[in-house]
Parts: sequence; C-alpha cells; structure tokens
Amino acid sequence: MVTSREFYDLLTVADAGESLFKLLSRLTETEEVSLLDALGRIVAAEITAKEDIPGFARSTVDGYAIRAKDSFGASQSIPGLFTVIGSVAMGEVNTLTIGPGEAVEVPTGAMLPAGADSVVMVEHVERTGELLEVYEGVSPGENMVAPDEDLRRGEVILPLGSRVRAQDIGALAACGITTVKVYRRLKVGLLSTGDEIVPIETDPLKPGQIRDVNSWALAANLRHLGCEVVLGGIMPDNFDRLVTAVRELVEATDVVLLSGGSSVGVRDHTIDVIEQLGSPGVIFHGVTLKPGKPTLAGVVGRVPVIGLPGHPASALVVYKVLVEPIIRYLQGETQIHPRRILRLPITRSLASPAGREEYVRVRIIEQDGAFWADPVLGKSGLVSTLLRGQALACIPLGSEGVKAGELVELLAWDEGEIR
Amino acid sequence: MVTSREFYDLLTVADAGESLFKLLSRLTETEEVSLLDALGRIVAAEITAKEDIPGFARSTVDGYAIRAKDSFGASQSIPGLFTVIGSVAMGEVNTLTIGPGEAVEVPTGAMLPAGADSVVMVEHVERTGELLEVYEGVSPGENMVAPDEDLRRGEVILPLGSRVRAQDIGALAACGITTVKVYRRLKVGLLSTGDEIVPIETDPLKPGQIRDVNSWALAANLRHLGCEVVLGGIMPDNFDRLVTAVRELVEATDVVLLSGGSSVGVRDHTIDVIEQLGSPGVIFHGVTLKPGKPTLAGVVGRVPVIGLPGHPASALVVYKVLVEPIIRYLQGETQIHPRRILRLPITRSLASPAGREEYVRVRIIEQDGAFWADPVLGKSGLVSTLLRGQALACIPLGSEGVKAGELVELLAWDEGEIR
Repeated sequence: MVTSREFYDLLTVADAGESLFKLLSRLTETEEVSLLDALGRIVAAEITAKEDIPGFARSTVDGYAIRAKDSFGASQSIPGLFTVIGSVAMGEVNTLTIGPGEAVEVPTGAMLPAGADSVVMVEHVERTGELLEVYEGVSPGENMVAPDEDLRRGEVILPLGSRVRAQDIGALAACGITTVKVYRRLKVGLLSTGDEIVPIETDPLKPGQIRDVNSWALAANLRHLGCEVVLGGIMPDNFDRLVTAVRELVEATDVVLLSGGSSVGVRDHTIDVIEQLGSPGVIFHGVTLKPGKPTLAGVVGRVPVIGLPGHPASALVVYKVLVEPIIRYLQGETQIHPRRILRLPITRSLASPAGREEYVRVRIIEQDGAFWADPVLGKSGLVSTLLRGQALACIPLGSEGVKAGELVELLAWDEGEIR
Repeated sequence: MVTSREFYDLLTVADAGESLFKLLSRLTETEEVSLLDALGRIVAAEITAKEDIPGFARSTVDGYAIRAKDSFGASQSIPGLFTVIGSVAMGEVNTLTIGPGEAVEVPTGAMLPAGADSVVMVEHVERTGELLEVYEGVSPGENMVAPDEDLRRGEVILPLGSRVRAQDIGALAACGITTVKVYRRLKVGLLSTGDEIVPIETDPLKPGQIRDVNSWALAANLRHLGCEVVLGGIMPDNFDRLVTAVRELVEATDVVLLSGGSSVGVRDHTIDVIEQLGSPGVIFHGVTLKPGKPTLAGVVGRVPVIGLPGHPASALVVYKVLVEPIIRYLQGETQIHPRRILRLPITRSLASPAGREEYVRVRIIEQDGAFWADPVLGKSGLVSTLLRGQALACIPLGSEGVKAGELVELLAWDEGEIR
C-alpha cells in the first residue's frame, strides 16, 4: 500500500519503465502465420537458412562464363581469345564443364557451368560463330554470385524478437520459408474514466461533456503495433464500478491502460483500485515527465495497469514515451527503445523545467532547403495540436530549455510521417 | 510502338514518374469505414468540424473559476479575497453565474460558470469555508480552454487526400465522427517472370532455380500501404502465356507490377506484351536510376503496367523510388513524394556515375553519439543485403559520388526503422 498520497516521489521515465520491466514477463504463446501475415509481427523463434542461397554459382550479367585467369591482360588492342562451347538457358541445370580458353554463354541469373569462376559482360566481347574475343579481363568471382554468397546454411536470417519488415519477407521467401512462428497478438484493454467523458457517437454534446478521445487514439496506436485492442468503454468516477471494470480487463487482457482521472479524486481512485485488485499493486505514481506527471502504474498478478492523464496530448505523450516500450517488451520485441535517429534544429527557444523530461509537439517544416522542428503551440487538452503535430521534440531531464537553432531529438507521432 | 530497341532514351526518375502521372487517374470509388478501420486509409472527402470543440469553457486545472481582473495584483503578501459561491462537478451542466469577487470550485476538465474568464490553480489559494485567499493573479483565458479554442465549427480536420494517422483518429473521435469516407483499397496485380523463378514452397531447389522473392517482398510493401494484392504467380518466359496473364491482371486490378525479365530477351517480351494489350502502350523503357536502369512502364487503357528488374534489391529500389509515389497517387493521396527529412553523414566515400540517380543500401549506425549511414556492401542480387539494410542513401543525378562524412538524403526501407 502506498502510504501517503502527499508523498509524491517522482520517478524518471527511465526508472519508471525499469521498475515495471522487472516485474513483467514477455509473451510466451506463439502461433504460426503465413509469410505475408508475418509482416509487423514479432519472430518467436530464430529463423536460419536451411540451405545455401542461391545454392549454385549464378551469373549477375548477360555474358560469357569463363575462367578468370584466361582473361588476364585482355584489352581493346590485344583481346583474349575463347571458344564458345555452348550456352545455358535460365533455370536450366547445365552439365557443361569449361576448360582453358573455353566460354559458355549465360544470361543474367543463369547457373554457371562447372569450371567457370567469373563472367565477362556481353558489352566487352565480340563473337563470331564459336570464336569469342574478350576486350576486358575479369577477376575471379566477378559478375557472379557464389553458391553460398547470399546466405550460408545455418546463418541467422531473423533473430528471435525481431519485428518482421517488408524486406524481411523477401529474404524469407528466398529461403523457402512459407510460414513464420510469431508471438500471438498482445491483448490490450482500454478504459476511459471520468464523469464528463461520453461515447464518441454522442450527438449533440451537453455542455460539460467531452467525447472519449483517448480510447480511440490509443487503440489506433496499438493497432499500428499489431495489438488486439479490447475497448472497455467509459467508467464514471465510481470506485466500485471501476474495480469491477478493471478486474474484468485484467482477467481478459495482457495489459490495461486507463486514461482520464487526471483530477486528484479520480487519480486516488485509480491507485486504490490497483491496490485492491492484488499484489504487487502500485509501483509508481508520478513521473518526471512533462506533460504526463500524474502517470501511475501498478501490476496485478502479471498484468500491468497503467493510468494515463486525461488530456489527449498528455495521454499520447505518455503512451509514446513510456507505454510503447512496455508494449514492445510484452510483445517479445528485442529493440524496445527508439534510437531517436532524427535530430533537427528547433525554430524557437523554449524554456523547460530542469527537473522534467519534456516533450514538445512539433511540425517538421522546410526552410531554405533544411528541415526544422517547429513547436506547435496549444494547451495539452487540445486535440487540434495532435492534428498539427508530426513529432515530439525532447528536452532532456536536467536541461532548462533549448535555444533556437539547437538540435533536438525527435520521436515521430507516426513513423510514416518522417519520410 | 517504340521504334527501336537499341535507342535507349533513358528518362530521369522524376520525368519517368511525370510521364505516367499525366496518363493516370486517381481512384474515385469510395467506401465508408468505421473510425478505427480508417487508420492508414486515404480520406475521400474533406472532413470538417460540425460543432465548436470543446463547445463550452473548460478548466484545464483543479482550482477556482474567477474573473481575472478581480485577481490583478494579488500576491503572497497581499492576497486577493473571494467568496466561494459553489462548485461544479465533472460533466455537469452548471447554471451558476459569478459576479465581482466571487469564485466557483472547478476540477480539471469541468465547465466554467457564466461570468468566469479564468481559473486560479488550487496550489495558489487558501480556502477557509466560503473565504478564498488568492496568492497569484491570473490573466483572462488562463488555465482554461475557450468554447471554440480547440476546433471551430467548419474548420478542416482532415483534408481530402490525407492518409489517416493514429492521432487523427483521436481528433475525429473528439468531433463525434464514427465513420470515415475513404477511397477503396487499390488493387495491385503482381507477376514474376523468368524460367528460373519457382514458387517459394519449392523444396529442394534444383540447381539454377531461384524462389520468387519479388512477389512476396513487393506484396509486403504494398500491404503496408493498404493495398489489396493480387498474386498473379510466376510466368515462364513465353510470350503468349505472358500476354494472357498480364491481360487478366489488367482487367482485374488497378496497376500491374511485373518483375524479373531483367535479361534482354524477357525485357523485349514485356515491351511487346504491353504494346499488344492496347494503347497508349509503352511510355518509357530505361531510367537513369542505379540500380534499376532497365525499368520500363506502359499504360493499357487506364492501367499502368510497370516492369521491374529481377534482382530483388533492384526491384525494391525501383519500387521505393518510382513505384511507391505512383501507388500513392492512384490511392488518392496528396503527398505522394517523400520529403526526405532524414539526412546523415555517410561513413565512407563512394563513387557514382554522374548520369545516374543512385541509391545505396545503408545501415544506420551510432558512433560517438552521432548517427551515420553505413553502406551495406553486396551485389544487388543478394537478399542478404535487404536484411542488413535499413535505408537507401541517395547520390543525386549529376553527382560523381559522395565523400566520407558528407550528408546524404535517406529513404527508409520501412519507416518503422527510423526511430
């Protein structure tokens, strides 16, 4: 039991994440899906090549397969002379063997005959019947792929815990892998709390009512990551009903996200609900994050229950910065933290409390051929700032702000935008 | 009819795209999908706010609603004095009106009473019964959101042709929009050609055979963009069968991608197939792109037919650089070209032919706290370079290469990686 509501022992974002990770278990249940359906899923068993790829020596150009050493010194003025002993068609198994001074015609992609260790391009030869003049020497291995040059039997194609990308699907296809063992979809329960929150179909709104933005914005983000979303609906600020609703979600899902309850009363309710449902209970309440300070989290059995602020922009910042790595961890992904590769100069100076890790919504604009992070002004309760923003600029813990022109690390709201 | 196969009039990537765009029509058919299913789809009719949001004056803090001018000059030593005339609960319509020197208790998110134009935070007051001492003045509009401050009735939420992002779903929810009119899914037909290409389930491979990498890698990329993929299978290098197969795909889909046929014979076949199927026929063959020079395209009726190189890495470069903007265009998206926001220094010098726009596969590595684009070496026929690569670095047309440390523009293979 948390002893005092007043004692606000804020954790850093990193410590808050760690304090949860050590109590959580990654998914273990797996399923076998067809190759294309593996896109975006997490690999549940290391995938290795079961054979050498391509498995045969293969030409990468249209030309003539030869022994490289027979072409050494060949030039425009003193061509090398070869005898063409045959040709190989695409996809054909060939039984030809070339000896010294011999050549075999090969199209791009065809199998080289035995004895050949290189291919001279058709652009660098002149053929008259069986006589082939070669005007440029080649090195061993030139214009060809060796039998195990692409992938060697036993080589790791995709390690355990990787998220399958479109190009990975191509590599798996090359290896004849038609199904992939992946972790089952993570089930995420969502619940909005607050007496003012009404279902999105409510029309017209009464004064004082707000539609349930967070359930839907969170659901869309979670779906993007391949989660199965269980919409738990909206709970009024009533302790008993909240206990029942959260218990149902804890039993039915792998992780529960509550949003709303950013006012003091509801926040206290959420803490009590987590404590009541079981141990280990509340793990932290309060994070040195702006926006997102009142974020709280607990664990019930093995299910994390995370309480997000009610303001949509705050809820989504907390989702992106703190919750998404937890989701990726539970999904079984190895690389759970973003590397924050994108860094751009900021257009204006911003002050920031030194004791907070702050995330500022920005648009990415182009000026004089360079890209800049341009802060989107607006209170964190406004959904319009979500529309206008494309990324979050980080002002780190310990920094009192950034100066115009200073580089800031960016987290994209949606990776598709950073293109 | 293209008059000569020998006359290789290469177009730049930009001109090749433009020559197709002017012959193509964007999708017009639409469908209505539920809010969450709109994620990643293209908006087919401008979406505007049908009411002011939030629609009422709303507190953004826990505190007391007052008239700002009554608090001017209030300080720790000379507090402003107010009379608390009531309180407002969350989601409640209130009928209170405050006059000079009066205050109403409001939680975060609650509706302000009439007459109030600001909220003083609970941290800056001391209350004793009905008496409220205010220790810090507020300005009009402070700690509150005006009725139309978030979105004004009639304001555009999502313009025609935008791709719906996760955070957009939140904004649509706020406005009570439960279904979205989007363009129907674009149907893309895929066909692999070449006598050496076999279905991916072929096991074991005979020497000379290669599994069909391109259909699957392209299908995964297209699915990522929300397309419906029609797998046309694999065609041997046979003109009549190719004509029949391409005709069937042209009739059943919106765009047809052929891959393979990078050897001269098959390339000529593809050109003849496009010419035979109808006008306007072949639009270009040959692009100043590396890899990807032998790319060709035509239009049959209104359906573009694009012939990609057979080497997987080449095919995917052409897909990313030339085909993806065409797919986005046909889908109805407005922003079809990437802005290429990410630019990193390259780890090594690379030479490049000045007459080609070259794309080099790179990994993104971190060294001494900075990120670098590190070229992945390997022939374009190797699928392993797809596994190791994360992005494509562009060496522009007209440049003879890049020097180590020079900034290069990057296109992510998969946007999820650039995080």
